[in-house]
Amino acid sequence: MTRTLTPPAPVTLAAFDAMFEAVKNWGRWGPDDERGTLNYLTPDKVAAAATLVHSGRTVSMAIPINKVAGPDNANPAVHLMSLMHDIPISESGLSFGMCFLGMASHGDCHTHVDALNHVAYRGQLYNGKPASLLTSRGSEWGSIAAYATGIVGRGVLLDAARHRHVDWLEPGEAVTREDLEAIEAAEGVRLGEGDILVFRTGHHARRLALGPWSNEYPPAGEGKAGLHVDTIPWMHERRIAAFLPDGDGETVPSNVEGMPYPIHALQLTAMGMCISDSLQLEDLAEACEQEGRWEFMVVGLPLRLPGATGSPWNPIAIF
Amino acid sequence: MTRTLTPPAPVTLAAFDAMFEAVKNWGRWGPDDERGTLNYLTPDKVAAAATLVHSGRTVSMAIPINKVAGPDNANPAVHLMSLMHDIPISESGLSFGMCFLGMASHGDCHTHVDALNHVAYRGQLYNGKPASLLTSRGSEWGSIAAYATGIVGRGVLLDAARHRHVDWLEPGEAVTREDLEAIEAAEGVRLGEGDILVFRTGHHARRLALGPWSNEYPPAGEGKAGLHVDTIPWMHERRIAAFLPDGDGETVPSNVEGMPYPIHALQLTAMGMCISDSLQLEDLAEACEQEGRWEFMVVGLPLRLPGATGSPWNPIAIF
Amino acid sequence: MTRTLTPPAPVTLAAFDAMFEAVKNWGRWGPDDERGTLNYLTPDKVAAAATLVHSGRTVSMAIPINKVAGPDNANPAVHLMSLMHDIPISESGLSFGMCFLGMASHGDCHTHVDALNHVAYRGQLYNGKPASLLTSRGSEWGSIAAYATGIVGRGVLLDAARHRHVDWLEPGEAVTREDLEAIEAAEGVRLGEGDILVFRTGHHARRLALGPWSNEYPPAGEGKAGLHVDTIPWMHERRIAAFLPDGDGETVPSNVEGMPYPIHALQLTAMGMCISDSLQLEDLAEACEQEGRWEFMVVGLPLRLPGATGSPWNPIAIF
Amino acid sequence: MTRTLTPPAPVTLAAFDAMFEAVKNWGRWGPDDERGTLNYLTPDKVAAAATLVHSGRTVSMAIPINKVAGPDNANPAVHLMSLMHDIPISESGLSFGMCFLGMASHGDCHTHVDALNHVAYRGQLYNGKPASLLTSRGSEWGSIAAYATGIVGRGVLLDAARHRHVDWLEPGEAVTREDLEAIEAAEGVRLGEGDILVFRTGHHARRLALGPWSNEYPPAGEGKAGLHVDTIPWMHERRIAAFLPDGDGETVPSNVEGMPYPIHALQLTAMGMCISDSLQLEDLAEACEQEGRWEFMVVGLPLRLPGATGSPWNPIAIF
Repeated sequence: MTRTLTPPAPVTLAAFDAMFEAVKNWGRWGPDDERGTLNYLTPDKVAAAATLVHSGRTVSMAIPINKVAGPDNANPAVHLMSLMHDIPISESGLSFGMCFLGMASHGDCHTHVDALNHVAYRGQLYNGKPASLLTSRGSEWGSIAAYATGIVGRGVLLDAARHRHVDWLEPGEAVTREDLEAIEAAEGVRLGEGDILVFRTGHHARRLALGPWSNEYPPAGEGKAGLHVDTIPWMHERRIAAFLPDGDGETVPSNVEGMPYPIHALQLTAMGMCISDSLQLEDLAEACEQEGRWEFMVVGLPLRLPGATGSPWNPIAIF
Repeated sequence: MTRTLTPPAPVTLAAFDAMFEAVKNWGRWGPDDERGTLNYLTPDKVAAAATLVHSGRTVSMAIPINKVAGPDNANPAVHLMSLMHDIPISESGLSFGMCFLGMASHGDCHTHVDALNHVAYRGQLYNGKPASLLTSRGSEWGSIAAYATGIVGRGVLLDAARHRHVDWLEPGEAVTREDLEAIEAAEGVRLGEGDILVFRTGHHARRLALGPWSNEYPPAGEGKAGLHVDTIPWMHERRIAAFLPDGDGETVPSNVEGMPYPIHALQLTAMGMCISDSLQLEDLAEACEQEGRWEFMVVGLPLRLPGATGSPWNPIAIF
Repeated sequence: MTRTLTPPAPVTLAAFDAMFEAVKNWGRWGPDDERGTLNYLTPDKVAAAATLVHSGRTVSMAIPINKVAGPDNANPAVHLMSLMHDIPISESGLSFGMCFLGMASHGDCHTHVDALNHVAYRGQLYNGKPASLLTSRGSEWGSIAAYATGIVGRGVLLDAARHRHVDWLEPGEAVTREDLEAIEAAEGVRLGEGDILVFRTGHHARRLALGPWSNEYPPAGEGKAGLHVDTIPWMHERRIAAFLPDGDGETVPSNVEGMPYPIHALQLTAMGMCISDSLQLEDLAEACEQEGRWEFMVVGLPLRLPGATGSPWNPIAIF
Repeated sequence: MTRTLTPPAPVTLAAFDAMFEAVKNWGRWGPDDERGTLNYLTPDKVAAAATLVHSGRTVSMAIPINKVAGPDNANPAVHLMSLMHDIPISESGLSFGMCFLGMASHGDCHTHVDALNHVAYRGQLYNGKPASLLTSRGSEWGSIAAYATGIVGRGVLLDAARHRHVDWLEPGEAVTREDLEAIEAAEGVRLGEGDILVFRTGHHARRLALGPWSNEYPPAGEGKAGLHVDTIPWMHERRIAAFLPDGDGETVPSNVEGMPYPIHALQLTAMGMCISDSLQLEDLAEACEQEGRWEFMVVGLPLRLPGATGSPWNPIAIF
């Protein structure tokens, strides 16, 4: 059973810009801060998150890395052997298999985390840093290395597909602030300062059922379900530390006139929010049902890659 | 202050083979098991590990990924931009930085985790599977994907360098079973079933102080400090779930006659142990001192790469 | 206007094996020879080929390297900048653009040349060498490095599409020995010892007109136009030195029962023939018409990559 | 026997800039020209070059691609198997070896050709095009694709090492215009319009004898033998079409005050000259001696890589 909502009225670019200013955290944690909303996630909140662990069940939120080209995988991962059992070490009988992995960090079908140097708006990165910091060697400032000690905290799954009693939201459907609060009420949870919002539209369930589709700008493709931009001031008020969606949070086509990726611009560039892309939340959704709760400890660990604009990763929930 | 111990008497190949048989877990968890000693790390042990979190301090155990060739980095990571701010999306003012990462999974200076398909001894992988399973596309069986839900448990740092009152053990020095038990006693800890042994020789401290050196087989290089093989039966008895050393656990030259990498063969191939390589434990050692304890929660999250023989990763300790 | 020929009767595997034996050049140029049929292309034939140059017109026979995934491009080339103008050298005002290229050598839509270590039949490479020579590091024996001084000689275009008065042969159509001789007669040329056979079915013209299609084994795809296996003994008799087709020479489905890629096996493995894949012969076909001749000097220059099973390349015709 | 010349007096930056203006070919072949000095190499000159072929001997001018990191190979080529004989096609007995190659196009120890989009001076590429054309996806304008039909012409080896009776020129030694004319006289050759200057200092001979060394800017390294900038106006007057040196033509340290890579700036940016880097001219030098002549046909064939700033290649001389 699926239903399509009436799409909310489009947001003007002027309204978007006003919102950008309103949620802007530039300077909030100092002029050189590169952790952004992770500043909300203090050690005491890490410790509190650990108390959510009861059963010890761990659930991966990552899609297996995809080596096959497709409409959402223009640059499939290169995975090859750099050494195989053909080269025994001495006469000892030992042989080794060794891998080489090459992949784009921001592929639409690879679970990854974005660094704060990933998106600039009008020539500026988060905290007002110039986009020109970003060179063909990356940018030391705001790189994924700033998240080296990991994202550890209380995660709450707001499951929009479950709430609407559908297998997945259809491309183009947008989840509003009102919706998020309704889901909170239904699940009996409330997100607060330093929490990690895990957000499910069923994007990956749709992919598993119907196959991959193109959801990239500029080609129209079929679009994507995601957030309405009015959820961003809500996240700002609630002081959310990190955002982990299936899909990438964006509704495609966008709700903002003439602006693709408004969610990324508001989250990464204005707020300095830690965001991830393209999670696999099907296993988590099932685990939440079985455990009867929608909160858990989250751990996400980016690779320590200096200068990088992001990293593939495999974040988990611990119940 | 450094001191060099008298190296223990070499172990014969026959003794090695007997040890291999003695610690072999093949079949222990079924003929198709591909989680090996992680079977010791049950959900209740995960839950118990979470109770070790008090301060909420998180510490990375990874070395920043190294893009510069050197004696222990023959194939430096390739890190390039696949898209930069040169391509604004429409006229919106948005621009993106996007990375490409290419790297060998088992580089000697890159913190990584080995899969159970990484090492074969006499034509057999862990659980008796034929080495021929491993092809140029990897091996679905025993790949790093078997660790998709992560390594989460109680970690204990046995700090051999601290115990010997040195900055680092010198290449060639071996830590014995007796040493490990002495360190346990000194630190007031005891490793048991399902625990994660974090083992520090100061390898990375030496690298930071003196620069990189070659420690590869077959070229002699300068060697490496590591374990004596007599520690392996001890790990087997204690039912250790995972092993996270700086260096790679091996003493170079090896203590076993005619056998390089005896530790890998015993751990990976015989025991099916989850092992990591080339950790950076300097920050952790300092944190342990400051926190006054040598146990903590460990979380390590491999990439979900089907078929892979290992994965770069960034495991953390949570206090 | 297109026409489909009655496909020739299938060849049995036994007949294939007999043909394999009949055209086998193993040992012909010594037990360690790794140049195969290029031995026919002696310096005097190189010199003779140069006398074919009159107008000085040069024509590329390569497809531009394709960076976009598609049905015949499962692993698109990775082309990124490793340095850009962001890093001026000192204050001199100089800036540099520098590329990184990563690509599979044998992609179906990338013009490339195969090395003699590329294909084994029943465990043996050309000259009877064991397939086990080929490891994850390649094979020094029979690698593309054996062609380091290039393929230089008299090229003759046999244009099957033109001969049949079609834009292209349809997938599945096979060109026989009889056809080749008819084309020779019509074009007023004759191929002999040391010559380079350039063979056009219009494969690339079809791709340009209709878009890419899958022509790989094992999935059926739409198939491919190519050679009937009865052309191979003809090439053997004529002592052809090299073979440069659009497509890859194979008719798909194959004319040999239970045997995909029979042309590759016969050419590479049995004869040790220098063969190329996936040429773009549209510009050449037009040039031949304009020049009024179907013979010319050919130069093809593989990269000097030790151990490689092939190389991307850009062979040219010089009129 | 080696000798070190008195280095010529340094050239001021102002003199450099005047020279830049004097040799500038911007607009000479139209505002959108991207072939530069290859315009001198007309078809009749190609045809004339072919008449130089007598013996049919072919000689490679490329260094085998280097997979081992070293002081002049910071990013060694990645060469791996993407498929090996482990995957037989059906039950036919066929198995395949297939390569993946990843490499930087401009490595100091990899023979390559530069595109006209490779170097900008004060924000401008050849023909006055803005450096901003060059993005992380390369630049369609001035890319190596402009050389798709290859570099084919009369090559003349000016062998500076032979002329000075040394095995190689020492790092820092510069060859002047006067020297080039003296070598011409000694060899009995004269370079003219559309010719290809092959220039040998013995750089690679030194590398083979003494091992690799760093010759990069900005770290000083040991430096490099090369051209004095006063040779550039000479090349301009002579209307040389292409320049193929061992080393990269630069004398290091540079003869121009405050200006690294003056030769590249003058050749690529001002003149639009086709230049190659890091050739292996040892085999050619020997062949010239044996053939008793220093002119020959040259063929160099870049990969057809759209947008690329250069390409690895394997140019040859044909005698």
